[in-house]
Amino acid sequence: MPATQHVLTLSCPNRPGIVSAVSTFLFEAGANIAEAQQYDDPETTRFFARIVFDHPAGAPEEATLRAGLLLIAERFGMAWQLRNLAERPRVMLLVSKFDHCLADILYRWRIGELPMAPAAIVSNHPRETFAHHDFEGVPFHHLPVTKTTKMEQEAAIWSLVQETGTEIVVLARYMQVLSDGLAAKLAGRCINIHHSFLPGFKGARPYHQAHARGVKLIGATAHFVTADLDEGPIIEQDVERVTHRDSPDDLVRNGRDIERRVLSRALRWVLESRVILNGSKTVVFS
Amino acid sequence: MPATQHVLTLSCPNRPGIVSAVSTFLFEAGANIAEAQQYDDPETTRFFARIVFDHPAGAPEEATLRAGLLLIAERFGMAWQLRNLAERPRVMLLVSKFDHCLADILYRWRIGELPMAPAAIVSNHPRETFAHHDFEGVPFHHLPVTKTTKMEQEAAIWSLVQETGTEIVVLARYMQVLSDGLAAKLAGRCINIHHSFLPGFKGARPYHQAHARGVKLIGATAHFVTADLDEGPIIEQDVERVTHRDSPDDLVRNGRDIERRVLSRALRWVLESRVILNGSKTVVFS
Amino acid sequence: MPATQHVLTLSCPNRPGIVSAVSTFLFEAGANIAEAQQYDDPETTRFFARIVFDHPAGAPEEATLRAGLLLIAERFGMAWQLRNLAERPRVMLLVSKFDHCLADILYRWRIGELPMAPAAIVSNHPRETFAHHDFEGVPFHHLPVTKTTKMEQEAAIWSLVQETGTEIVVLARYMQVLSDGLAAKLAGRCINIHHSFLPGFKGARPYHQAHARGVKLIGATAHFVTADLDEGPIIEQDVERVTHRDSPDDLVRNGRDIERRVLSRALRWVLESRVILNGSKTVVFS
Amino acid sequence: MPATQHVLTLSCPNRPGIVSAVSTFLFEAGANIAEAQQYDDPETTRFFARIVFDHPAGAPEEATLRAGLLLIAERFGMAWQLRNLAERPRVMLLVSKFDHCLADILYRWRIGELPMAPAAIVSNHPRETFAHHDFEGVPFHHLPVTKTTKMEQEAAIWSLVQETGTEIVVLARYMQVLSDGLAAKLAGRCINIHHSFLPGFKGARPYHQAHARGVKLIGATAHFVTADLDEGPIIEQDVERVTHRDSPDDLVRNGRDIERRVLSRALRWVLESRVILNGSKTVVFS
Repeated sequence: MPATQHVLTLSCPNRPGIVSAVSTFLFEAGANIAEAQQYDDPETTRFFARIVFDHPAGAPEEATLRAGLLLIAERFGMAWQLRNLAERPRVMLLVSKFDHCLADILYRWRIGELPMAPAAIVSNHPRETFAHHDFEGVPFHHLPVTKTTKMEQEAAIWSLVQETGTEIVVLARYMQVLSDGLAAKLAGRCINIHHSFLPGFKGARPYHQAHARGVKLIGATAHFVTADLDEGPIIEQDVERVTHRDSPDDLVRNGRDIERRVLSRALRWVLESRVILNGSKTVVFS
Repeated sequence: MPATQHVLTLSCPNRPGIVSAVSTFLFEAGANIAEAQQYDDPETTRFFARIVFDHPAGAPEEATLRAGLLLIAERFGMAWQLRNLAERPRVMLLVSKFDHCLADILYRWRIGELPMAPAAIVSNHPRETFAHHDFEGVPFHHLPVTKTTKMEQEAAIWSLVQETGTEIVVLARYMQVLSDGLAAKLAGRCINIHHSFLPGFKGARPYHQAHARGVKLIGATAHFVTADLDEGPIIEQDVERVTHRDSPDDLVRNGRDIERRVLSRALRWVLESRVILNGSKTVVFS
Repeated sequence: MPATQHVLTLSCPNRPGIVSAVSTFLFEAGANIAEAQQYDDPETTRFFARIVFDHPAGAPEEATLRAGLLLIAERFGMAWQLRNLAERPRVMLLVSKFDHCLADILYRWRIGELPMAPAAIVSNHPRETFAHHDFEGVPFHHLPVTKTTKMEQEAAIWSLVQETGTEIVVLARYMQVLSDGLAAKLAGRCINIHHSFLPGFKGARPYHQAHARGVKLIGATAHFVTADLDEGPIIEQDVERVTHRDSPDDLVRNGRDIERRVLSRALRWVLESRVILNGSKTVVFS
Repeated sequence: MPATQHVLTLSCPNRPGIVSAVSTFLFEAGANIAEAQQYDDPETTRFFARIVFDHPAGAPEEATLRAGLLLIAERFGMAWQLRNLAERPRVMLLVSKFDHCLADILYRWRIGELPMAPAAIVSNHPRETFAHHDFEGVPFHHLPVTKTTKMEQEAAIWSLVQETGTEIVVLARYMQVLSDGLAAKLAGRCINIHHSFLPGFKGARPYHQAHARGVKLIGATAHFVTADLDEGPIIEQDVERVTHRDSPDDLVRNGRDIERRVLSRALRWVLESRVILNGSKTVVFS
């Protein structure tokens, strides 16, 4: 029987003794470190770590672990999170009519690539738009939106987040800008896929902008959502080569491939607690 | 003995019969088409072609070819260029104190990768800055520049371009912005390497900007110089992956690799007449 | 109303006058060349071309075009194919239990990325294996296979190819080796995806071989099927970076992404008549 | 004044308490961990770590550190290495007539990218072959070799390694196969660049093999040299896209770029103690 694995992520002001304190505590608690990565940001002098550990001789109570970590966290001024890796984060997927990211995420979830529990699929388009998709019991919510109903629609989304215990929200080509209020409520746990290689081509129709500029590579960017549109901390980016022969439609088609893989990578890393916020940037322990 | 090869590049408003007229003329002139690529831009309805041909049964006089092509060009309203591929374009290299692009271009030229004739190396830094380089007889010109002497220095550059019969100017990390006047005189034949993936991070210290933004890929862009800084037609771009661990200095080091290969690719393509201007964009026949 | 577009692909021994003859014939038939690429293989001295043309002033009878092209083809000893781009090739998809390539191809077809008409989906596993897939009316055939029934099963596949008028067969992770006989019958129109960067790691469990060897990149290869397993002409390849941290399962997961995009690219290029066989290699006009 | 940094690399059978023991020892010795990465190989159940630390309050004697680490190493059965990062490894470069890797390494060393002390440049070709290179005082040794003198020539190389205190040997396109004897003496500290994406195209003229096979990507592989040619532990690999248009010479040219950057990356990682042998594979802490 494989032992339970926990992942501990933490950040705090850097000073000597952090690793020693944490690793000694885990050792004395009977844990075995299976994976560990750390990073000192020389600019902010902040320390970040991700530690995966198991319990060869039987898991201690998680409450015991938490009590011990709390003491260390207080001593070093740590922000920290402890998760049982067997527990899958609840994820809400927001989507507009372009369904390639949704299709990709659902497929990867089905075959076990994405360790998550889909809590809901929400769209401003009706269920018929996704007629070809087998949602496999994940509840679908049609929440149409207009300029005048945006406040109410976002309130409905927020209620749904709370009711379903959603931990992570994914804007899988949702095509609606979240209000500052909702963005703030979802800070650090809402991932968007922007269809350009940020910071180039912010705003609408980025592939058409890219075509007009004559770039030789196009890209996509997965980032955390902040009130400042397209300025959120970047989690992952990728590009593909294009040529003068490619029409805006070719760029859009090519872009779908990039968007899919960039968003699903970013989501997987967030689900595996590999991504830690560092101001307006991210630390990604690959 | 290998036959002489010519390369013909042309562009004109698209209409039926262009390929037929050109290929029939070449066939009747005893030429054999070795390579041909064409492109119709559906937006501008402009036609572009690059044709390499040789003369299996002995080359006709180039003047004869030119006379015939002139007639076709008039009929179709063509801009065209005919070059003997054995004749190497005269190239002037402008460089500041960062010499990695210069070192790379000179090495590639020496081993035969870049079919060019270096006409001059020009720098605002003295010859000692490049003490480790063997310029192999290529004349070096130290043309220092300050805000007040910029006009005179650019006049000296322009004189040198004329005296040396320079056809292509390469800003190999020259770090000086050309005046609108000099940019206009060198329109379509001056290549710059910008150390970012344009249009992101225009202007100064782009790697530091990229670091501050927390991007996950950095890039470089080779483009034709225009009066509008960093907005010239893009010839080639490339990127490399970076992580949160990379300092601005790591980005700079990584960037040198990208700059080198992007600039040398762009230069080779220009030397082989593979790049044709299409408004603010380029057609690159690879 | 957009004019009908045809694509003409051809290959023949290289000699002067081919382009002139073809382009002049098309011009006189009222066609306008929209796209053209050609290639002379200096080793085999064989000439290859792909020409897309439309008919601004109304399409001539296809029979008229064919009659004219036949004369030129005889003169130059051409192998050639003329296709109306509006007519979608009939494609049969063969799949085993790993359905990621199938899912990807069906999705791309549904949203219009792959200009094909799926004629049948064939598997050695029953329909239940693909319970989550909406085949949208494409007939599914369960053709189980064992060592002793392989001959009969392949006969059934071949019958199906004939009955359905299948033009292209795709082994979308079919996991069964075709017999020499069936491979020969499908020569030049059967595409396989091999889950390694050929010629490295031929044969079974290539990701496990790659892991054991400690490579730093893994890949996938789409190729035409020949009697000589994993030696068919390569159409497309791609790779992704892996590290010592990646388990064989990580490589498999990573590999699914590469396989999907390599196979779908290769299939799209074949559907668009961009791929021409050149002995044991391919010419791919991108 | 920046504190001295040390790098500690270690490997041992995995069991609980390793990180705790090492990090507590370093903490008590007044060291501050600046960077740490670790890896447990689930197959071999072996543990690997790389720890960079500095001494904010003044460095302890290195001998004191070593004495303490020795005790821990004995307890856990560790292989370990402690290096002062300010001390640059002595490197011998072996080269044949293709000098692109040599030129690249020397340039990177000159501008500070490669933290090494070149101990000697050795070639089977005379100094004139490298006339354009400024070796900047690094001793050059012409050691010609024939089938009959190979034993003597290798003895001369080995003497030179010993006399110069060479720690790392780089075969920078040396084009000579080392004997099993010399390979054994240099085990774990001799890096070769093979001009193919191993394990494809072992042996001679790999780019010509790649061209004949019609691959769509070519690559290069940096690996430790072992008696088993082209089978040594892989440190780094990379690829570039090629097309049917590329001749064997184009592949060679393209390949030079890949070889240069793959070898220089591998060398930098070895110089920074980022590479640890793991049987026939490597752990690379990026």
